[in-house]
Amino acid sequence: MKELREYFDRELPRIDSFLQGEVQKLHGLVRQVAEHVIMSPGKRIRPMLTLLFARSLGPLSTDPYPLACALEMLHSATLLHDDVLDGAETRRGQASAHITFGATQAILAGDVLLALSNRIGADYGIPEISRRLSGGAMATAMGEIQEMAAAGSGVIDRKEYLEIIIGKTAKLIETACRLGAVLSGADQERIQAAADYGLNVGMSFQLVDDLLDYSGDAERLGKPSGSDLVEGKITLPLIDWLETIPPAERQEILTDIAEKRLAEPTQRRIIEGVRKAGADGSTQKLAEGHVRQALDALDAFPDSEEREVLIQAASFILTRQT
Amino acid sequence: MKELREYFDRELPRIDSFLQGEVQKLHGLVRQVAEHVIMSPGKRIRPMLTLLFARSLGPLSTDPYPLACALEMLHSATLLHDDVLDGAETRRGQASAHITFGATQAILAGDVLLALSNRIGADYGIPEISRRLSGGAMATAMGEIQEMAAAGSGVIDRKEYLEIIIGKTAKLIETACRLGAVLSGADQERIQAAADYGLNVGMSFQLVDDLLDYSGDAERLGKPSGSDLVEGKITLPLIDWLETIPPAERQEILTDIAEKRLAEPTQRRIIEGVRKAGADGSTQKLAEGHVRQALDALDAFPDSEEREVLIQAASFILTRQT
Repeated sequence: MKELREYFDRELPRIDSFLQGEVQKLHGLVRQVAEHVIMSPGKRIRPMLTLLFARSLGPLSTDPYPLACALEMLHSATLLHDDVLDGAETRRGQASAHITFGATQAILAGDVLLALSNRIGADYGIPEISRRLSGGAMATAMGEIQEMAAAGSGVIDRKEYLEIIIGKTAKLIETACRLGAVLSGADQERIQAAADYGLNVGMSFQLVDDLLDYSGDAERLGKPSGSDLVEGKITLPLIDWLETIPPAERQEILTDIAEKRLAEPTQRRIIEGVRKAGADGSTQKLAEGHVRQALDALDAFPDSEEREVLIQAASFILTRQT
Repeated sequence: MKELREYFDRELPRIDSFLQGEVQKLHGLVRQVAEHVIMSPGKRIRPMLTLLFARSLGPLSTDPYPLACALEMLHSATLLHDDVLDGAETRRGQASAHITFGATQAILAGDVLLALSNRIGADYGIPEISRRLSGGAMATAMGEIQEMAAAGSGVIDRKEYLEIIIGKTAKLIETACRLGAVLSGADQERIQAAADYGLNVGMSFQLVDDLLDYSGDAERLGKPSGSDLVEGKITLPLIDWLETIPPAERQEILTDIAEKRLAEPTQRRIIEGVRKAGADGSTQKLAEGHVRQALDALDAFPDSEEREVLIQAASFILTRQT
């Protein structure tokens, strides 16, 4: 993983510096909120993937940082709106923007970041970039909507769960990879391969995220174990565990989740049960399958430092702890 | 005004039909909310202006309806978010979307409409369209932010008021006109003239809107007189009236507005006072000045049915009752 670490160590300060510069240009009232969400410690997965694919075919004549950062802004905007909707009180280990600044500021700062992201994308003068950025934003919002509806209905199956995580997470990561490839001047086949890598990395990333929510270290994650459950989100680790208990009890639990009246002892029992299933469950296996598909997609690209980092990044997802 | 009425009568059903078609394609969960806001009776000023400028130089080879409707979607998205922020309970005479469907649905439906608007714009393959759509969205959000800050601070002067209405209203109307001209194939000078028309029409539209909030017929407007005052919005008719009362009393009223504890008798007194100033106040005169500037900008365009309608539309602003 040496290449991965070196690449991130080198690029993270450049990404942060561009983001910081853009945020500083914003009106004072929105700057603080935008700064709170965008400059808090994050993995910068989306901009990093854009950079990696942009450089995957050799040196570039265009500056890839604005595009890379447009993806991070779009992501931050969805986090701002998402946290208001969820009522989430923490994000990346610190108080959510809407708790610190109020829902009004968080919604408007999200709108500004969305618009800024689109403007930066449009400044490349490549219509495909604007088209895909708006497609990514739309998929994310639709995924959120579907997730909320599922949480409120008390009915969700594996198929719907997968649709939700494609929408709310994988599509934007697909977009980050695809647009990097577009900037690199790749042909259609390679652009599609980059998109395939992104979609699969996004799926496995979210699957592992949902697993970590139950099995991860609360302190390291910056949120308590079983947060999803408490918020009424039904994820695959839970769906799997529910299949191991009697149908009547399962229905009772799903109804309690939908009506947000899950008793604390039941919560603890579920978290414990899901934890135990852990690495043996289908979530882990599904994540591994998507990582394999992501790696296969990289066959379309020539050897390079970037391709090596992309291989390591996909593999890293399965071992990450935060 | 015959041409204006005929043009609107002919075009409104086409705009509505395109909007209806796009909204029907949305996911069921967001469709209802989007439909609620986008299909409620409205003036369709923005899409109409885009159509008019798109056709101002003769027949088009490109379909202008998607672009025109992208402007209406962007506007509807800002209304959805705006109503959540304001806590407004009615919009266009009916219950606001967030009251009918909940804030969560309203925020996400707004995000979807924003993304859809950008995607439709990007599909034209003209980077300038994407650039200006995002610029319009950003200006609107910044205007909202500035307006809220001003309302909470209890201090606002004419200069700041004008900045706010440029941001929250005039910039998007400017964008509608500008993009119509871009689609028409106009040269830079005419594109700028279209933008000037839009900015001035937008300013006068908002000035008259702020005046009607005090002086208009509550039933016809679909909201009670002095709604802005009750929401803590300080507009030019109020600023003008405040200058006619003793400074100490003025400061007391501004503080009460900022702290949202304006007593009902004082509210009634203010509304009555502002009403009386009415057409003699600077708001009306300023609106008239902007209409004149808008009309001047049309000198850059050749005679046509569209130019005639644009002239009538600008003049109509000063006499509108809703």
